[in-house]
Amino acid sequence: MATKENLAGAFAGESQANRKYLAFAKQAEKDGYPQVAKLFRAAAHAETVHAHAHLRAMGGINNTLENLKAAVAGEGFEFETMYPPYLAEAQQEGNKPAEISFRNALAVEKVHYDLYNAALESVQGGSDLAARPVYVCEVCGHTVYDQAQDKCEVCGAVKDRFTLID
Amino acid sequence: MATKENLAGAFAGESQANRKYLAFAKQAEKDGYPQVAKLFRAAAHAETVHAHAHLRAMGGINNTLENLKAAVAGEGFEFETMYPPYLAEAQQEGNKPAEISFRNALAVEKVHYDLYNAALESVQGGSDLAARPVYVCEVCGHTVYDQAQDKCEVCGAVKDRFTLID
Ligand SMILES: [Fe+2]
Ligand SMILES: [Fe+2]
Ligand SMILES: [Fe+2]
Ligand SMILES: [Fe+2]
Ligand SMILES: [Fe+2]
Ligand SMILES: [Fe+2]
Repeated sequence: MATKENLAGAFAGESQANRKYLAFAKQAEKDGYPQVAKLFRAAAHAETVHAHAHLRAMGGINNTLENLKAAVAGEGFEFETMYPPYLAEAQQEGNKPAEISFRNALAVEKVHYDLYNAALESVQGGSDLAARPVYVCEVCGHTVYDQAQDKCEVCGAVKDRFTLID
Repeated sequence: MATKENLAGAFAGESQANRKYLAFAKQAEKDGYPQVAKLFRAAAHAETVHAHAHLRAMGGINNTLENLKAAVAGEGFEFETMYPPYLAEAQQEGNKPAEISFRNALAVEKVHYDLYNAALESVQGGSDLAARPVYVCEVCGHTVYDQAQDKCEVCGAVKDRFTLID
């Protein structure tokens, strides 16, 4: 069953390549290379095709009820098990950028955990969530319903750093 | 230096969470839960913020010349070292979906390797690539300049499965 692990490894690799290329595309725009930026965006799009094909082949996409259970489990692992020691070690090592990055993520995964649990409860009852706008803070990822916060309660960013999700 | 590895681990986790949530959002639309789909898209957006913050904190975003070198190295690793044994094992195990997924990715990473090498050469000479449209096949990720192929030379998909990259 090497293939099962190979699919997981390939999904991990394709996922990270996509995120890197999107970051590299933004940097290429800044550096004055718009066509190189476009090439990075194109390859990022291709890595999305690969990541989703691998995820499908490994049975990682199920119905929404099962997908929400997987999402709740993933968020729970991140804020309860993964991020607390990462944060403590970054503080011990005096690595301030890492400390901030881990603290923001930890706080936001707890929010996601609660939001996904509410969604799970709704879907278990056979209903969609009520239709409401959702906003995300571009600095820390904080995820809120209805309206942007005047001052992000996770990172302190101002209101216009929130993005309305389509 | 645990933090260095922790950032790499957190980047891997956030990258994969993003890809999963985007796939789950599409599934939620299909299953008739548009607001749950929006929540998945919002959390996916937040995981992008986290992934890029971690990548920045680990020094993974440099100037475009260095970013292209990293991209060439990553694509080379994938098509020369990672995918060939994955493909062989999927064939041995008779896992057809995995075999197709690995074969498509292997072929396309070779294309990306060449495209990134051409970009690297151009940026090393101080120039952007010439402005040209770029298309990506939604079935296999094949990445081509100028126009969609009538029949994708990697996977055989028809012309309208190609997407023009913004
Ligand atoms: Fe790929
Ligand atoms: Fe999350
Ligand atoms: Fe924030
Ligand atoms: Fe996250
Ligand atoms: Fe690639
Ligand atoms: Fe294709």
